[in-house]
Amino acid sequence: MTHRNYHELRATQEAGGKFLCVGLDTDLAKLPESCKGRGAQETLFAFNRAIIDATKDIAGSYKPNTAFYEAHGEEGVAALRETIAYLHEQAPEIPVILDAKRADIGNTNAGYIASSFEYFGADAVTVHPYLGSEALAPFLERKEKGVFVLCRTSNEGAGEVQDMLVDGEPLYRRIARLVSEKWNTNGNCGLVVGATYPKELAEVRSTVGEMPILVPGVGAQGGELESSVRAARSARDGDCIISLSRAILYASQGEDFAEAARREARTLDDAIRKAIQ
Amino acid sequence: MTHRNYHELRATQEAGGKFLCVGLDTDLAKLPESCKGRGAQETLFAFNRAIIDATKDIAGSYKPNTAFYEAHGEEGVAALRETIAYLHEQAPEIPVILDAKRADIGNTNAGYIASSFEYFGADAVTVHPYLGSEALAPFLERKEKGVFVLCRTSNEGAGEVQDMLVDGEPLYRRIARLVSEKWNTNGNCGLVVGATYPKELAEVRSTVGEMPILVPGVGAQGGELESSVRAARSARDGDCIISLSRAILYASQGEDFAEAARREARTLDDAIRKAIQ
Repeated sequence: MTHRNYHELRATQEAGGKFLCVGLDTDLAKLPESCKGRGAQETLFAFNRAIIDATKDIAGSYKPNTAFYEAHGEEGVAALRETIAYLHEQAPEIPVILDAKRADIGNTNAGYIASSFEYFGADAVTVHPYLGSEALAPFLERKEKGVFVLCRTSNEGAGEVQDMLVDGEPLYRRIARLVSEKWNTNGNCGLVVGATYPKELAEVRSTVGEMPILVPGVGAQGGELESSVRAARSARDGDCIISLSRAILYASQGEDFAEAARREARTLDDAIRKAIQ
Repeated sequence: MTHRNYHELRATQEAGGKFLCVGLDTDLAKLPESCKGRGAQETLFAFNRAIIDATKDIAGSYKPNTAFYEAHGEEGVAALRETIAYLHEQAPEIPVILDAKRADIGNTNAGYIASSFEYFGADAVTVHPYLGSEALAPFLERKEKGVFVLCRTSNEGAGEVQDMLVDGEPLYRRIARLVSEKWNTNGNCGLVVGATYPKELAEVRSTVGEMPILVPGVGAQGGELESSVRAARSARDGDCIISLSRAILYASQGEDFAEAARREARTLDDAIRKAIQ
């Protein structure tokens, strides 16, 4: 594989105004007949290939979520590997963020790094903050990769833990400050903040300066696109990555799924560009 | 597969005084020549099979950590599946805890559940608490499985986030209380608390009554066995699972690795039984 640097790849996409991230949350149960191969590997890959072909001139990044692939064991894992290899081949300029939500203690993370960056070939990864930066060091030391730390997640019950008050400040904002002020010594960190919480998103943006923010939860999860984009981007010009998955992948569940995905991606990209201006 | 229930399996092991958990953190780089097969899958499985054969009359549970297998992609994943199938076949009475440290938002966790419980066939799993109980519901609803929530992890820098004060109480203790008082409605929860923090371990035990505590970090990570066992077990008689990996797996890195592992497991089990009395 040729040398890839997440930050360089992303800077080029950002300069081109490409903030739409296509989430490859490929659910085997939802795929049309024409994608069905001999097994899960063939089917998942056939669908992803069609989605990539249909959206690669629109997407500014791709984000496969490992859960959808691991559900199918070896075959799913192989399909994910093939998908990322296909992306690097067909769209080498587009960074791939592996939404793996990993984090173990230091030396054990070496396994997740081998998996995410070497085996799958991802350019960036998402991680849990709970074990602290000492545990995450093997990720944080990989300067050429992007490390997105979960901050305020998009789920309804995110606040149960993330809103706990630490010296009067909600935990998610404390995490945002920690990452921004201490963990980001290599300048490779970003944060995950759900579109479902625009107020929190705006607060995080104002706390972390130009740090990249990955924003899932627009659409199916109820986040509003325009307000989320404005909150995540702000006047600070930090990169924002607006991730949509189901709205694009399943725009049609019929045999026109790829064209429908392309149309939806185009509509969303237009809306994002308009919100950013 | 026959019906398996983590809690019933573990209760039998506990009644038999079996608190030693053999951590299958199988590192391909450390395995002896005689295990080397055609690829990672054969090698990892050959080693694990020998360790299981040598320790299955001593161990009260096994705990493979997914990171060591995922590092080798499809082959590693297949080796892990084979290992758990072999355990169920050779030692059906011993529960298998998958140390996967997963957690995503609600519907995405379905993929991790399919992976952990159906594909791998694990009896219990470890999860991150950061997304809250609403996100973890698909795990928490699986009554027959064990769900171990990370509370105070064994790594040196665990305190950076886990000791943050929430209304004057450290976050890890708040998490312990939350799990014990709110998340455990199905009685299937446990906590992960590292042996490297005996004071915190004792505090957690006194906070959560009889809830099972999984205790990694004895040995290689510096936790003391006797004080950890006493703190984790206490007078409450909650189950404690004392997990050791490197000390057993690599007791010898020569061709006598299986006998050495057996000897070390025996010594550790004796020490645990003595500490518990």
